[in-house]
Amino acid sequence: MTTLNQTFAEWTEQRLAQTEFALDQTLPKADQLPAVLHQGMRYAVLDGGKRIRPLLSYAACEFVGGDASVAAVAGSAVEMIHAYSLVHDDMPCMDNDVLRRGKPTVHVAFGEANAMLVGDSLQPLAFETLAELAERLPSSHVVQLVRLLAQASGSLGMAGGQAIDLSMVGKGVVNSSGGIAISQAELEQMHLLKTGALLRCAVMMGAWCQTNEPSAHQINALSIYSAAMGLAFQVVDDILDVSADTTTLGKTAGKDEQANKPTYVSLLGLDAAKQFAQQLHQQAVAAIAQTDEEKNNGLSSRRLREIADLIVSRRS
Amino acid sequence: MTTLNQTFAEWTEQRLAQTEFALDQTLPKADQLPAVLHQGMRYAVLDGGKRIRPLLSYAACEFVGGDASVAAVAGSAVEMIHAYSLVHDDMPCMDNDVLRRGKPTVHVAFGEANAMLVGDSLQPLAFETLAELAERLPSSHVVQLVRLLAQASGSLGMAGGQAIDLSMVGKGVVNSSGGIAISQAELEQMHLLKTGALLRCAVMMGAWCQTNEPSAHQINALSIYSAAMGLAFQVVDDILDVSADTTTLGKTAGKDEQANKPTYVSLLGLDAAKQFAQQLHQQAVAAIAQTDEEKNNGLSSRRLREIADLIVSRRS
Repeated sequence: MTTLNQTFAEWTEQRLAQTEFALDQTLPKADQLPAVLHQGMRYAVLDGGKRIRPLLSYAACEFVGGDASVAAVAGSAVEMIHAYSLVHDDMPCMDNDVLRRGKPTVHVAFGEANAMLVGDSLQPLAFETLAELAERLPSSHVVQLVRLLAQASGSLGMAGGQAIDLSMVGKGVVNSSGGIAISQAELEQMHLLKTGALLRCAVMMGAWCQTNEPSAHQINALSIYSAAMGLAFQVVDDILDVSADTTTLGKTAGKDEQANKPTYVSLLGLDAAKQFAQQLHQQAVAAIAQTDEEKNNGLSSRRLREIADLIVSRRS
Repeated sequence: MTTLNQTFAEWTEQRLAQTEFALDQTLPKADQLPAVLHQGMRYAVLDGGKRIRPLLSYAACEFVGGDASVAAVAGSAVEMIHAYSLVHDDMPCMDNDVLRRGKPTVHVAFGEANAMLVGDSLQPLAFETLAELAERLPSSHVVQLVRLLAQASGSLGMAGGQAIDLSMVGKGVVNSSGGIAISQAELEQMHLLKTGALLRCAVMMGAWCQTNEPSAHQINALSIYSAAMGLAFQVVDDILDVSADTTTLGKTAGKDEQANKPTYVSLLGLDAAKQFAQQLHQQAVAAIAQTDEEKNNGLSSRRLREIADLIVSRRS
């Protein structure tokens, strides 16, 4: 089924509906025991979020000519990891935030102990969901999906970035000798792990949602695209944290500044941060455009390009 | 390599050394960035614990004639899940315990935020470790190992049991009308999930540590064995909680009674709880003995039987 005649809005709407359906089907029902835990898991995952990661999985899957119904499952696994990380990050011992996606955070609504278990339960559900794909993919591809998601989530990926982020609180503006406490390289390394690893993983997983193996050219193009967009996403996040209000964001605005955390804005200034986001966007789009024409047998990079536009131009 | 000429003590010592080696190799080095996170992960996992779950994986692997070096990896994955669950369970928002395996708990030694991330990082490392087994096992077996471990860890397994356990605090002795607040069936259901799911999983994973498929008879025998021993383990835990002291246990004794949590001892009394543990032991041993002789082509159930003895007779 080709989707190339759809506008981006139509394509996105259809993909978001598929993602929501996949998540709803995968999560245990709200009345299944232990009910409070399952209600908390559904609360954390459903009816909220931009679903950028699932959209990236779909777009990368289209880029390689894969199976969109498989990408729906892979993307929902990535989204469950993302959702668990938000639940744990919001807890009092971490960022201590009370608002997420315009709603009370999970620990506010369900208590801290349940919030911990909600996160702890979403993580294995993501891997179980991937294991179920063995009915539709070669088992070796399922193993590859598990490996990508596990690496992106762990101490050398998202959780590691979070640990570095924690250690940066209070280093945002000036250190005791009057200089910036950390370098742009250090900040980039943190974000490459904290946000970038899972965004990159969402793209690379899309490439394995097919019965064939992705080509080296495809993998290479997607690697460049996903690394650049993973970073761009965070730069835009930092820009929005100072320029948008809490209602638009659906989460507390200005909290990086409050915690005196280093951001691209505090490091580069607002204008240079915006320019940097544009540069990353160009880099990402160039990588897939080149491969699209020369190596990719005419398959489309269109959705990846449109998502890159969306990430850089988003308001929340 | 046959190990049948080893005494149980020799066999156990060798297996524990292999497990320790596998865990040490799998965990990121203590000086690798982010170093605090990796130090916390190593602190949580290494140099402690009875390693019952890895021993069960080895024994089940021997029962089906599998590859012990593969069982070493599978068992260490289970142990990382077990270790993460202890780190999170000990945190202030859960059991709020300060002593584990005779050492300060992870959140006491590394802070709450790092303890959260230590647990969150051990979980994907367990799945990544399984994915690496694709070099030595059919990919379909790796997928089966991932599925077993994910199911045992999640909301319908260990984390679900923990959620039910949380909801039971204060229901241990008598309710307001003077009767026991929960039934033995409810208590069993909770323990079947909280402790039993992962113990059972350690056994069943051992059966897939081979290039052949385990037979239906082997799976059936191991299912009965593992369900009975999973429960027996918890009954003995409850007995030790009232009869051993903190130094012997390496963790705080008497804490179930303090929290007024229901246990087999509060429900059945000490003597009947001890009898129940013996019954479960007999049931487990009978299941594997019968299969051993009739269906298992002479492969040995000896180590599974010896571990059953160990679980029921342990002092800590």
